[in-house]
Amino acid sequence: MNSGSTRIHSVSLIQPDGGKLIELFIEESQRELKREEANKLPQIKVNKIDIEWVHVLSEGWASPLKGFMRENEYLQTLHFNCIRIDDGSFVNMSVPIVLAIDDLKKDEIGGVTSVALVDDENNPIAILSDIEIYKHNKEERIARTWGTTAPGLPYVDEAITHAGNWLIGGDLKVIDPVKYHDGLDRFRLSPAELRDEFTRRNADAVFAFQLRNPVHNGHALLMTDTRRRLLEMGYKNPILLLHPLGGYTKADDVPLHWRMKQHEKVLEDGVLDPETTVVSIFPSPMHYAGPTEVQWHAKARINAGANFYIVGRDPAGMGHPLEKRDLYDADHGKKVLSMAPGLERLNILPFRVAAYDKTKNGMAFFDPSRPQDFIFISGTKMRTLAKNKENPPDGFMCPGGWKVLVEYYDSLASAENGRVAEPVPS
Amino acid sequence: MNSGSTRIHSVSLIQPDGGKLIELFIEESQRELKREEANKLPQIKVNKIDIEWVHVLSEGWASPLKGFMRENEYLQTLHFNCIRIDDGSFVNMSVPIVLAIDDLKKDEIGGVTSVALVDDENNPIAILSDIEIYKHNKEERIARTWGTTAPGLPYVDEAITHAGNWLIGGDLKVIDPVKYHDGLDRFRLSPAELRDEFTRRNADAVFAFQLRNPVHNGHALLMTDTRRRLLEMGYKNPILLLHPLGGYTKADDVPLHWRMKQHEKVLEDGVLDPETTVVSIFPSPMHYAGPTEVQWHAKARINAGANFYIVGRDPAGMGHPLEKRDLYDADHGKKVLSMAPGLERLNILPFRVAAYDKTKNGMAFFDPSRPQDFIFISGTKMRTLAKNKENPPDGFMCPGGWKVLVEYYDSLASAENGRVAEPVPS
Repeated sequence: MNSGSTRIHSVSLIQPDGGKLIELFIEESQRELKREEANKLPQIKVNKIDIEWVHVLSEGWASPLKGFMRENEYLQTLHFNCIRIDDGSFVNMSVPIVLAIDDLKKDEIGGVTSVALVDDENNPIAILSDIEIYKHNKEERIARTWGTTAPGLPYVDEAITHAGNWLIGGDLKVIDPVKYHDGLDRFRLSPAELRDEFTRRNADAVFAFQLRNPVHNGHALLMTDTRRRLLEMGYKNPILLLHPLGGYTKADDVPLHWRMKQHEKVLEDGVLDPETTVVSIFPSPMHYAGPTEVQWHAKARINAGANFYIVGRDPAGMGHPLEKRDLYDADHGKKVLSMAPGLERLNILPFRVAAYDKTKNGMAFFDPSRPQDFIFISGTKMRTLAKNKENPPDGFMCPGGWKVLVEYYDSLASAENGRVAEPVPS
Repeated sequence: MNSGSTRIHSVSLIQPDGGKLIELFIEESQRELKREEANKLPQIKVNKIDIEWVHVLSEGWASPLKGFMRENEYLQTLHFNCIRIDDGSFVNMSVPIVLAIDDLKKDEIGGVTSVALVDDENNPIAILSDIEIYKHNKEERIARTWGTTAPGLPYVDEAITHAGNWLIGGDLKVIDPVKYHDGLDRFRLSPAELRDEFTRRNADAVFAFQLRNPVHNGHALLMTDTRRRLLEMGYKNPILLLHPLGGYTKADDVPLHWRMKQHEKVLEDGVLDPETTVVSIFPSPMHYAGPTEVQWHAKARINAGANFYIVGRDPAGMGHPLEKRDLYDADHGKKVLSMAPGLERLNILPFRVAAYDKTKNGMAFFDPSRPQDFIFISGTKMRTLAKNKENPPDGFMCPGGWKVLVEYYDSLASAENGRVAEPVPS
């Protein structure tokens, strides 16, 4: 997948946005040449989150975007959550994918048309050409993306507040595919690789499940039940894309390493069927921008070949940073998703609420006719149990998965007590 | 026009959004019946701005909206600035048209399906049926509409901050057409009446000029020049819709009465040709929401039959309430307008910059090859001159129009000095 700049995947899977998957890699034979070229260009040092976006763009998750947004794309994203393409139709694009520079860097770039993106050690990562520099109105960007400007939004604090006052857009070409060398690169399948995998498995439906939390048996029930429903609808071989988000997450989320270990246990323990499940990492950073961001999560999965998207309560939501309430209405995510321009081809599958059924000693879909039989185990409750090394009710989560969580919180406590944190179990 | 609820205007003018102009009046023969019905329903007392929106909705400016927005329309407006209609296409809708109620009123309404909207004296104005009540998240509404939550936004202070925590949507039927009895109702032509007028004049192009300020000769030059360009393009009879906004405006804008008097003088003095100009009042309240609001201003004029829309620098903009800068980028309005979903059929005509040309003693399009010959007369400069009863350079504004402005600021000064303000000159 990394050998050419553009590839058309024309299997029976859902077509990528804009009709073809746009990859932004420089051909292997050209890389040295381009590296030398990059060394002569003005250089923009990019940070960890910028590199995650370079990764996202280069593999075509944001197809048909060809690089960091120019102003026309940025304004359409902010105002319409979608971008008009050449044939007059819309593709969804709800989250700005932009690169900020400061005044000094803008002056340094001056009138040149291409720049190099370099890492911490000044190694060239990519070339941005036919550039356009425009104002970075942070307040407006934040307000229109998050629907609030309250201080304390994690992505804003991490990536916007201290960023430069200018944005630079242009056509991106990546010299070497982005790798993290963290033992998890093998899980980072690109949209093209996922499409190949779904094709290899003869999938006639792909249903994506975005997550950034440990999988419990309620999730598993939902995924298993979705497959059952798709079979009932006449599909012969629906494949689940279990797709944890791998980019930036806030400090109190369970880190990717631990989540991946937990997900592996869930598959090992047979809670999900490996034959019909592809576990992969979605490289995007997390905005926590609720109904705006869930569109991005869904749109990117179209490009990876998914034609069904499972959406839960309050997707990409969090607590309001200042007020004692959720930042977003829990139902807005699925409502906005079902109405979003550019997502017409995607089948939205709203989450059914699962809870612990005391009569079955396991997770089951909530039955409103006998509420007294159910216990809702919140994320907070789950964390408290794991931190205290207590067990949840039998059947809440597979024992292997639960053990990983307990280990994670134990490692946190050790670190807090001044002991060296245990290494991530491999 | 007020006799039926829906009328189709199928002349050669641009079609209204959704294909037909939707008026929301109760037929004259049914009014007494409906008034009696309204008297038995739960009552919502509406304020001045609410009534302006009832006016806007009832005449079809927001067609195909059939009443105050339900949540699905509200969410599409906030997130996409457009609404999907039954045939799958989009109509533009950038500003929420919503009615707020408080907790007490929500409880009082309970489970009924229709409510009456009543004025200050409890006279029924309209019936809202098949109602839906949903949360009014003010912070999110403000952030997504204005791109800021800074305190001091005029419409927010006036109409949102102290409004209730719930929104009520539904199908609106207006019992009596909204009238203001202020001597200006004759200028308040509905979209249907404007369409009839354009048809009567055999217009083959209608170009709309939205304004909320006095007309100076730079505006006049622009409008005259636009007509010239349209004739060059092959149109035989382009008609100008000079369309001052008549609803709520902020305290330091020139009030509607004075503006209308000034506009009349401009026509009397022959600056604009009455044969090819229709002066009418656009009943909408003003949001000052820049690129978001300019879409509403343009969309509403499609419904009134305009197929060309003149857009200036920083439309619907204002200074940032807290920072020393404009709230919006001056170019974003025209950029957003030219890309907005649902406005594809409207021809956007960007403003050419006019300034006072010292070599011609009059307003002319700015010529960048001889900048020294031009003076820019800002709104602030104009106000200062008028307040001091000084004259602007000859040719800046017709003398009759200028005299109206001087009278207005004189009346303000008198009021400030404790004298009774002069009545509005009729």
